[in-house]
Amino acid sequence: MHKEPPFTEVRNSTIDILMAHRSIRAFSSERVTDDIMDTLFDVARHSATSAYLQQMSMIHVRDAQVRQEVAAVSGQPYVGGDRGELLIFVVDLYRNAQIRRRNGASITSLHRTNLFLQGCEDALISAQSVCVAAESLGLGTVYLGSIVSDPARMIEILHLPELTFPLVGMLVGYPDQEPQFKPRLPSAVTVMTDSYDPIDQESEAFRDYNDSVTHYYDLRDPSTPLTSFSHRISTLLGLGASEQSEILDVLHRQGLCWK
Amino acid sequence: MHKEPPFTEVRNSTIDILMAHRSIRAFSSERVTDDIMDTLFDVARHSATSAYLQQMSMIHVRDAQVRQEVAAVSGQPYVGGDRGELLIFVVDLYRNAQIRRRNGASITSLHRTNLFLQGCEDALISAQSVCVAAESLGLGTVYLGSIVSDPARMIEILHLPELTFPLVGMLVGYPDQEPQFKPRLPSAVTVMTDSYDPIDQESEAFRDYNDSVTHYYDLRDPSTPLTSFSHRISTLLGLGASEQSEILDVLHRQGLCWK
Repeated sequence: MHKEPPFTEVRNSTIDILMAHRSIRAFSSERVTDDIMDTLFDVARHSATSAYLQQMSMIHVRDAQVRQEVAAVSGQPYVGGDRGELLIFVVDLYRNAQIRRRNGASITSLHRTNLFLQGCEDALISAQSVCVAAESLGLGTVYLGSIVSDPARMIEILHLPELTFPLVGMLVGYPDQEPQFKPRLPSAVTVMTDSYDPIDQESEAFRDYNDSVTHYYDLRDPSTPLTSFSHRISTLLGLGASEQSEILDVLHRQGLCWK
Repeated sequence: MHKEPPFTEVRNSTIDILMAHRSIRAFSSERVTDDIMDTLFDVARHSATSAYLQQMSMIHVRDAQVRQEVAAVSGQPYVGGDRGELLIFVVDLYRNAQIRRRNGASITSLHRTNLFLQGCEDALISAQSVCVAAESLGLGTVYLGSIVSDPARMIEILHLPELTFPLVGMLVGYPDQEPQFKPRLPSAVTVMTDSYDPIDQESEAFRDYNDSVTHYYDLRDPSTPLTSFSHRISTLLGLGASEQSEILDVLHRQGLCWK
C-alpha cells in the first residue's frame, strides 16, 4: 500500500506543514483579518525574485461584483460567494516598462519570452510562500488555475494593462472540510540523477502509485468506475476549459512572448 | 527610512523563515545528507499540482563533469565546484505523453501553451517548497535563472526529451555568508484591490523604496556609483545573458507552446 507522510525522520514544524498540504475548496464564514492578509502580502514580497526585477503584482479581489465575474471565468462554484479571500497573482512587466519609459529607456526586451518566464517565477514563488504561510496559520488554500480558462476576460475584469498576465488565482480561508491526502508520484519517478530518466510504466513504483490513486478515488466516491493515474492522464488531460484556452494569442496581444 | 521585518505581529516560526529569505551564494564544505535531500524531494512532491497532472521532474546533479557543464551555461562561478547540492526543476510534459501513447491517446493537447504554464506552476511551486523547507533546516538556497542563458545546451547536458524544459536551477547547502537583506517593493506598490493600479513614481512609498535600494548598494560596495531601483531597471534589465536567450524557439523545438 502507498504510504503517506511521514516518510522520513527529518522533520520540523515547517516541514510538517509542507508535507500536510491539501487543497481546501470549502471555507467557514470566519473572516481572515487584515493583519493576516498584510502578513501574507509581506511574505510574498520577501520571497526570491528573478534578477531582482520584481515582475509580479497581487490583486486582492474584495468587491462582490468583481468576484462574481472572476467566478464566472473560473467555472468553479467555490470561487463565487464570499468565503475565503480571493487573490490573483499577476505577471507584471508593465511596472518596469513605466519606469523605463520615464527614464527614456527602450522596452523592447520586455517583449521576450525569457522576461515573461522570469515574471512567472516571481508570481509563483510568491504564491507558494503565501500558501505555506497561510497553512502555518491554520488557513487553507486552493490554487485557481481555472482563471486562465478565459485570460482575455480576466484582463478586462481586472483592467490589466499591456505586459501583464493573470497567471494564477488563490483562495485563502479557514477550512470547512478535511479532504483526504491525494497521492503523489513517488520520488522513484520524479527525482532523477544527472540526466533525464524516462518513466518505466512497468516498474513496481509506478504500478503501486497507480493502485494508490485508484484506491483514493474509490474511497472518495465508491459509485464511480475505478480510475488510475494512467487512466486519468489518458482520458482527462486536455479536456478542462483552461487547457483549451488560447493563451499564446492572448500573451502576444499583451506584448509578451514575442520571441 | 525603509523598514524591514518585522512589519507585523502575526508571526510564527514558519513566517519568520519566509520573512528572513536571502539568496545564499557561498556554501561551507559541510555536505547535505541524503536524508535531508530525500525530505526536500518529498516536500516538493507533496506541493500543489495543477489539475493533478504532476508535470514536473527534478534532476539532482551529482556528477562533477555534468555540474561543470551546467556551471558553464550559467556563467556563475558559485555553480561550479562541489559546494551545495545542485537541483534542476524541469517542466515535464513528456511523462504524461508516454502514458498517453501507451494507452493510444493523442498528445496534441500537450503542445499547447496552457499545459506548459501548468508545468511551470508545478515546477516553481515545488521549487519554492524546497526553498522554504531547506531554510527551515538552516540551509541556504539560491535560484539559478541563469541556466536558461542557453536552454538548448542545458537540454543536451541533461538529455532532456521532447516536451520538457529546464526552467530553473537551485543550489542548496550550508551558508558560508550572511548577506544583507535586499529591500523589496512595498505592498503599497505590489498589492492592489479589485483592479490593476499603475505605479505612481512620485509617491512617497516608491521614492522611499528607491532610497532604500540606493542605501543597500552603497553599504554593499561604497566604491560604486549610487544606484536606485529605477536606475537599475532602466539600465540593467534585459542585459543579462539569460534575458537575451531565444527561449520561444527552444520551447517550440521541444514541442511546447505551439499555440
